[in-house]
Amino acid sequence: MPLYEDPPDGVVLRAERLREWTRSLVMKVGTPPEIAADVAEVLVAADVRGIVSHGTARLEQYVKLVDTGVVDPAARPTLVRSRPALSLIDAGNGWGHHAGRVAMDRAIAGAAETGTSISIVRNTNHYGIAGWYAMRAADRGMIGISLTNSSPLVAPTRGLVPMIGTNPIAVAVPAGRHGLLVLDMATSTVPRGRIEVAARRGERIPPGWAIAADGSPALTPEAALEGALQPLGGQEETAGYKGYGLALVVDILTGVLAGAHFGPNIVGLFSTDAPSDLGQLFGAIDIDAVASRATFEQRLEGYIDQLADAPRIPEAPGPVLYPGQPEAERAARNRRDGIVVDRAHFESLARLGRRFGLPEPPGSPRPGGDS
Amino acid sequence: MPLYEDPPDGVVLRAERLREWTRSLVMKVGTPPEIAADVAEVLVAADVRGIVSHGTARLEQYVKLVDTGVVDPAARPTLVRSRPALSLIDAGNGWGHHAGRVAMDRAIAGAAETGTSISIVRNTNHYGIAGWYAMRAADRGMIGISLTNSSPLVAPTRGLVPMIGTNPIAVAVPAGRHGLLVLDMATSTVPRGRIEVAARRGERIPPGWAIAADGSPALTPEAALEGALQPLGGQEETAGYKGYGLALVVDILTGVLAGAHFGPNIVGLFSTDAPSDLGQLFGAIDIDAVASRATFEQRLEGYIDQLADAPRIPEAPGPVLYPGQPEAERAARNRRDGIVVDRAHFESLARLGRRFGLPEPPGSPRPGGDS
Repeated sequence: MPLYEDPPDGVVLRAERLREWTRSLVMKVGTPPEIAADVAEVLVAADVRGIVSHGTARLEQYVKLVDTGVVDPAARPTLVRSRPALSLIDAGNGWGHHAGRVAMDRAIAGAAETGTSISIVRNTNHYGIAGWYAMRAADRGMIGISLTNSSPLVAPTRGLVPMIGTNPIAVAVPAGRHGLLVLDMATSTVPRGRIEVAARRGERIPPGWAIAADGSPALTPEAALEGALQPLGGQEETAGYKGYGLALVVDILTGVLAGAHFGPNIVGLFSTDAPSDLGQLFGAIDIDAVASRATFEQRLEGYIDQLADAPRIPEAPGPVLYPGQPEAERAARNRRDGIVVDRAHFESLARLGRRFGLPEPPGSPRPGGDS
Repeated sequence: MPLYEDPPDGVVLRAERLREWTRSLVMKVGTPPEIAADVAEVLVAADVRGIVSHGTARLEQYVKLVDTGVVDPAARPTLVRSRPALSLIDAGNGWGHHAGRVAMDRAIAGAAETGTSISIVRNTNHYGIAGWYAMRAADRGMIGISLTNSSPLVAPTRGLVPMIGTNPIAVAVPAGRHGLLVLDMATSTVPRGRIEVAARRGERIPPGWAIAADGSPALTPEAALEGALQPLGGQEETAGYKGYGLALVVDILTGVLAGAHFGPNIVGLFSTDAPSDLGQLFGAIDIDAVASRATFEQRLEGYIDQLADAPRIPEAPGPVLYPGQPEAERAARNRRDGIVVDRAHFESLARLGRRFGLPEPPGSPRPGGDS
């Protein structure tokens, strides 16, 4: 997931107050309080980690889905089938964030008993950042895994049109004094939002990100937005079929296995045409079933130290990083100094507040930002 | 894994006879019969699927590891710890193929009870094609997963030198009339063997495969062989950090979790300097715990049909494929017509046969190959 730079004319919001405000807003559309708490928690976690494309900036779109009856804000997930290490859950077309939290907690509880466990969810919706669920397991000393399918934006290798989602893979691991190692990656080279940013900035884009409508490599964001994203690896000669294969496997482990929609059959996640009926998978592996957690984390600390100390290529903009390191650094700063959101984002929250009789979200101009 | 073209001056070997010959040979170096059967099965499966880099062409190297006392040919894996859905197995520095088969069978049996199960193996060795183990689960109506770490050949994003293995990810899924869908991919853009092939053919290589010793993109195989492989995605701007992240997660789920070697600490897989002490993970998900297998396979058949019928880019050399389709087609042909191995490969087998008092492997010149 791309980490976005702070906007120059931003508004500063305190994470804990934004969370409370978001919870109140989500309750206003008919969401029970404890479900709204999950939604607020996951959305604000994205803002805190600097992944603003997946946070409270999406609230207007979520509210529209509820307004139009496409998502049921009061739905509670139900257990359809279970074995000691596997559960199938139906989200009832409710908030994906809540069903995801419930499903991950069930996987964590299962893994504590049996060593590893997975929960598979169908009939669900967009759940924010995949990494949040994996981190929930890692915070409890487990290795957490979170997968979701999504609407078709990626052309398979040799294909001309979008057939498959950017289907992310998230894995989180407790890493001792390094905190959590969190891989949270779309299986496309970049998400569509990154190309939209390039369009706003007037930038060209490199081969490997997208194809144009005629199938040639897109070299401008405008051409890319009329074509399709490429899977990780890009063209066939640079092994784009591996990214395509990963996206397909994620779809099989979620949509196909769960009995949800998959591939080209998924409607847009924020489309009001029909429910998304996504599939998701949540897994946990109990480290204590294999080694003591302390021993495991010592090993991983040492590995990360070796990587950080590795010789660098001359043009490297910084040291070798571990997955999730930039987001963790941003989160530490944002928890301390507040989250900086851009004006359009702030205005979208203010509009929602006015509509539902809530005060404006409690923000202040970015110190020095307007001076 | 790259599928190799048949050599023009090859020798044709029947799979079942090559398997029996290989088993006899592996027994000659002190391997008990049922362990030798596993080794022969996995190595010949690679030859059958056209992945000659991982098949019987490696036998001389394996025998050398036994000759020098680096691998114990008679070691039997032992169960170190277990929970209902997780086992930790010590391979005793024996044949990786045998420990892998035993570990996968334990994961399959566990998943039949609990819905999903994993086996984690330490103190093991090169196990051939990762996909074989995943396919073993898929043949039994489960989704199979197989991961291994390997010796450092890949530079992490921003790094100058190899620090991490090509750590493959294999997932196999029963796909109805399409047979098995098998993703079996190194997390580097290409394996080192692909660059060696380019060197022999005098070809240039594209950016994204490797860096030269100075950190710049390698554009010749010679420069690449003095530098390091790049992770899937290539350079940082085309998201090579995702391939690096996947390789690192595989290493964490195998070497770090198992208490085996990991990252830059692994000696070469065929080095006689010291045991490899690899880590591996084998997982199974019982489809019947979620949906009927027939229903699941119908869905996947339909998905694969949609992909095969997708509109293509103008320069596509063929239809959109599913993972493992080229290997499955090669396997069908090789089972029918025999496996075509090149002269050097055949000679290496003949040398081993002479040394251990076995007849030459039963082959015949490729029909039309020498005419």
